[in-house]
Amino acid sequence: MTDDMADHMTQDTDMVHSIFTDVLAAVKPTPREIVDIQTVAKDIISLVDKTAADMEIDARGELVGSAARGTWLSGAHDLDIFITFPESTTTTELEENGISIARRVAQGCEMEERYAQHPYIHMRYAGYDVDLVPCFKVKSASQIKSAVDRTPFHNRFIKEHINGMEDEVLLLKQFMKGCGVYGSELKNQGFAGYLVELLIIHYGSFTDVLKAVSRWHHPVVIEDFVVYADDGCTRNRGFGEPLIVIDPTDPNRNVAAAVSLTRMYEFVDAARSFIQNPNKEYFFPTHSPAKTPAELKNIRRIRGSHLCALVLDLPDMVDDVLYPQLRKTEQSIAALLQRNDFSIIGSDVHLSESFVNSAANSAVNSDPCGENGSDIGSDVTGSDWKCLRKATVVFELLCSEIAGVERRMGPPVHVGKNAESFKDKHKDDPKDLSQVYIEGDRFMVDVARQYTTAQALIEGNIHGISTGKHARVGLKRGFDILCDDELIDGATADLCAVLTRLYLKTR
Amino acid sequence: MTDDMADHMTQDTDMVHSIFTDVLAAVKPTPREIVDIQTVAKDIISLVDKTAADMEIDARGELVGSAARGTWLSGAHDLDIFITFPESTTTTELEENGISIARRVAQGCEMEERYAQHPYIHMRYAGYDVDLVPCFKVKSASQIKSAVDRTPFHNRFIKEHINGMEDEVLLLKQFMKGCGVYGSELKNQGFAGYLVELLIIHYGSFTDVLKAVSRWHHPVVIEDFVVYADDGCTRNRGFGEPLIVIDPTDPNRNVAAAVSLTRMYEFVDAARSFIQNPNKEYFFPTHSPAKTPAELKNIRRIRGSHLCALVLDLPDMVDDVLYPQLRKTEQSIAALLQRNDFSIIGSDVHLSESFVNSAANSAVNSDPCGENGSDIGSDVTGSDWKCLRKATVVFELLCSEIAGVERRMGPPVHVGKNAESFKDKHKDDPKDLSQVYIEGDRFMVDVARQYTTAQALIEGNIHGISTGKHARVGLKRGFDILCDDELIDGATADLCAVLTRLYLKTR
Repeated sequence: MTDDMADHMTQDTDMVHSIFTDVLAAVKPTPREIVDIQTVAKDIISLVDKTAADMEIDARGELVGSAARGTWLSGAHDLDIFITFPESTTTTELEENGISIARRVAQGCEMEERYAQHPYIHMRYAGYDVDLVPCFKVKSASQIKSAVDRTPFHNRFIKEHINGMEDEVLLLKQFMKGCGVYGSELKNQGFAGYLVELLIIHYGSFTDVLKAVSRWHHPVVIEDFVVYADDGCTRNRGFGEPLIVIDPTDPNRNVAAAVSLTRMYEFVDAARSFIQNPNKEYFFPTHSPAKTPAELKNIRRIRGSHLCALVLDLPDMVDDVLYPQLRKTEQSIAALLQRNDFSIIGSDVHLSESFVNSAANSAVNSDPCGENGSDIGSDVTGSDWKCLRKATVVFELLCSEIAGVERRMGPPVHVGKNAESFKDKHKDDPKDLSQVYIEGDRFMVDVARQYTTAQALIEGNIHGISTGKHARVGLKRGFDILCDDELIDGATADLCAVLTRLYLKTR
Repeated sequence: MTDDMADHMTQDTDMVHSIFTDVLAAVKPTPREIVDIQTVAKDIISLVDKTAADMEIDARGELVGSAARGTWLSGAHDLDIFITFPESTTTTELEENGISIARRVAQGCEMEERYAQHPYIHMRYAGYDVDLVPCFKVKSASQIKSAVDRTPFHNRFIKEHINGMEDEVLLLKQFMKGCGVYGSELKNQGFAGYLVELLIIHYGSFTDVLKAVSRWHHPVVIEDFVVYADDGCTRNRGFGEPLIVIDPTDPNRNVAAAVSLTRMYEFVDAARSFIQNPNKEYFFPTHSPAKTPAELKNIRRIRGSHLCALVLDLPDMVDDVLYPQLRKTEQSIAALLQRNDFSIIGSDVHLSESFVNSAANSAVNSDPCGENGSDIGSDVTGSDWKCLRKATVVFELLCSEIAGVERRMGPPVHVGKNAESFKDKHKDDPKDLSQVYIEGDRFMVDVARQYTTAQALIEGNIHGISTGKHARVGLKRGFDILCDDELIDGATADLCAVLTRLYLKTR
C-alpha cells in the first residue's frame, strides 16, 4: 500500500509539476531580489572587515544561513553575518571585540543588542534584518567553542552539495511551513533550515523526500550520506530521538535532535496525504481564524473542561532562549499536576511578540535551557529588565478540583527495614486519613491532600520546580495563575489563537 | 536484619510460650467437645450408610474437613459429611441419588437445599451445622469429576501428616484470623484451612511458619515437601499467582491460587510484627466499632471524595458462589471507570448475611465465576428467586463528575491504512470536539464524552460488562446506583462497617 501511494504521485506527473511551478513562482527569490541581497551582504562584510582592520582586531565578516546558500524563501529579508575570530581568542575578547565591531558597523542604523550564548547586534540595514554574530573560527565542527561556531561549517557543506537542488529545498521548506513543521527549531520542535537542506541532499529531490518520509517509522536514522570527520567516533550511538540525522560536519551531533515525535509524524502524515492527493493547499493552507473570547467561552462550556494558566513576564530575549524554558516549565508543571492526580487533556505555551525579535534569529543557536545564557540584561532579581515579553503556560484539565484525600505509596512490604520507618512515621500522624495498609506488595496510607485545586497546587510549588534561568527570575518578580473565563476574558488576540489551537487542534 | 528478627522471637521463649498457652486455652477444643463432635459425626455417617443401603444405592458417608483432622477451632460447630459415589456414577445419578439420601438423613431436622456445583443439603443436627455433600470417589485427586471430589484426598493427606502438630495448626489459624487473612478463600482471597495445615506440615511449627513468612518475597513457591502423584506432570509451571503451594494430592493445582498479593503481604507484615513484638493481641485483636452514618458523612466531607455504589439483589446462595461474581463485577466496573478517566481511590464489595449461609461452606468448593453453577434456584429472569441477598459494589472516587471532552486514541501514524480509515471516520463528525491531530506517533481526536458522571457511566454500561451468571440475572431484575450521602443514609450496620473499612482501612 505504501508503494502504491508512492507510485500514485508519479502518475500525476503533469499535475504535480504544475503545482511545483506555481509554488516556486511564489517562493523563489527573483533575480532582482538575489542581486539586492548579495549586494547588501557584500557591503556589510566589507564594513566588518574594514572596521576590524581599523580597530586592529583579527576578525573577518562571513555570510552564513539561507541567504548564503541560495535557499531562502522569497520575501524573507534576513541576513546572518558572522564576525569570525581566531580560535586563540578568549571568550572575553570575543564578546568585547565582537560587540565593539558590530556596534560600529551598525552605527547610524536602527540597532539593538541581543543575547544568546554571547551578545550580538541586530540591525535594520537597507530594509534587511541583519544579525551580526561573533564566533570562533575553529578547525572542525566537532571542536567548537560556542554553539554558533558550527554554522560556518554547515554553510560550507551545503554550498558544496546543494548545487542545482535549491528549488527542491524551497519546495520542501514551503511544504513544511504549510503543514506547520518548519521553523525555529526550539520554539516549534520542528525542522530547521539546515535539516531541510540535508534531507534534499540525502534523498535527491522534494518528491523523493516525500516518498521516503511517507514510509518513516521511528526511529529513523540517516547517517550514511556523507561522513566528513574521520575521528574514530562511533556514530549513531546514544541518540534517543525519533529522528536521527547525523551532522556531516560533526558525527557526534544529531541535526534533528529538536524534532519531536509529534512534528515528525505530522510531516509523515502530510507527506502521505500529499502523495495521495497532490494539492497546492499543502503549501499555502488557509488557516481558520482564531476564536473570539466569547466563542472560546462557549467552547469551554461544551468541553466542560478547565483552563489553568501560569502567566509571567520574561526579559525581551530571543525565542530560542525563552521557548526552551517555557517548554521546561510546561513539562515540570505537567509532572507536578500528574503526580498530584490532576488529569491533563492538553497544554501549550505562548510568548507575546518580542520588541526586538525577528524571524532572523534561527541561525543563532543557543544553550537550550538558558542556564548558560549571558547575564547581560538580567540580574538576579530581574529588576533591570526593561522590555518584557508576557509568557503563558496553559493547561486544559479534566477536573479543576479533586478530593482532599491522597493515597501515599510506601515501601514494598518485603523490604522490612523501610517498612518499619514508614509505619513509625505514620503512627498516630494527625494528618493521616487512614491507618497504614497494604495494597498488593506495598504499604500505603491515605493522607490529607495539601492542594485540592490545580491553581493552589501550582501556586504552592512554582518556585520548587525546574523552569530555566530567566523563567526562575521572572517567577520571583511575580506571576499570576488565571483559570477558566478569567483567562479567556483577558486574552490577547495571540493568546486566543493559542487557546483555539489547544481546544480545536487547528494548526 | 531479618535474621535478627527471627532470633528475636527465640530469645523471648518464655513469653512467647505463655502467649501460646493462653491462645490454645481459648481455641483448642476441650476433650468433651471432641467426644461430642466425634459422636455426632459417627451417628450421621451411620445414618448415611444405612439410608444408602436401604435405598439400594452404592454410596458411603465420610467425615472430611477440620473436624475430621482434629484442627478445628473450639466453638465451631461445623461438620462436612460427604456422600461418596463410585466413579462410574453419572452426574445425574449423583445429583438425584445424593440429594435423595441427604434429604432422608436430614428428615426431621431443620434443613435446606443449597447450591454449589451440585446441590447439597445443609441441616441443623444436635446443635451442629452439617453439610451433606455428594461427591465422586475417584482414583486420584488429579482425576476429579467435580470440585468437591478432591476434599477426601486432602483429608487423608493431612490426617497422615499432621500427627502431633494439631496445636500448631490451631495457633496459625487463630493468628491468621486475628490479622484478617484467614477464612473463606473466595470471599476474602485469604488462606483456606487446608493451606494453613500444609504450611505447618511444610515448615514444622507455628514459630517456623512465622519466621519463614517474615522473609517471603513473592513469588513464593512451596513444592518440595511431598510429591504424591507421580504422573510425569511438570509441576510449578503456568502458575502466575504470588504464592504457589503445590497440592500434594494433585501437582497441577496451586492450593494458594485464591490468595491475593495483598493478603499474602498482610500475613508477611503481621508475621514480622509478631516476631518483633510478640503479643496476644495478634490472635485476638480488638476491632474498633464501625462508624455511624453521621460519622461516615463527616469523614466523607473531610476526605472530599465521592462514593458511588451499585446495589442489586442476588439469590440466597453460598458466599463461594456469589463473592467471586461480586469481585468480578467490581473489577469490570473499575476497568470501565478507569477507561473513562475516573480515578479510583478504593473499592470494596459487600453481601448481606445469607439466611442459609454459615461458616461451614468453606469445604464446598465451587466454580469461582458461577458460570457453571447449578441452574436450580435461578431461572433466566430470576423471577423465582425467593430469599435474596443484597449485594453492594462500592467505589471511592477522586471526582464524581469530569469534563465533557474525551481524548480518543487512533492508530499509529506509520500504519497508513488504519490512519486513512480513522481520518475518514472523523471527517466532519459532528460529535467531534476537535480536528484529528497527531500526538507522539498516534492520531488522536477529542470527542464528546457520553457520560460525565460515574453514576451515569455505570448505569449506561452495566449490562455490557462481565459480572458472572447470577449477578447478570440480578442486574436484569433491577439495580440502584447510590452516591454519597444517599448511600450512607440508607446504609445497614453491615454496610457501615464496609464503608468504615473503605475509608479508614481498619481490618
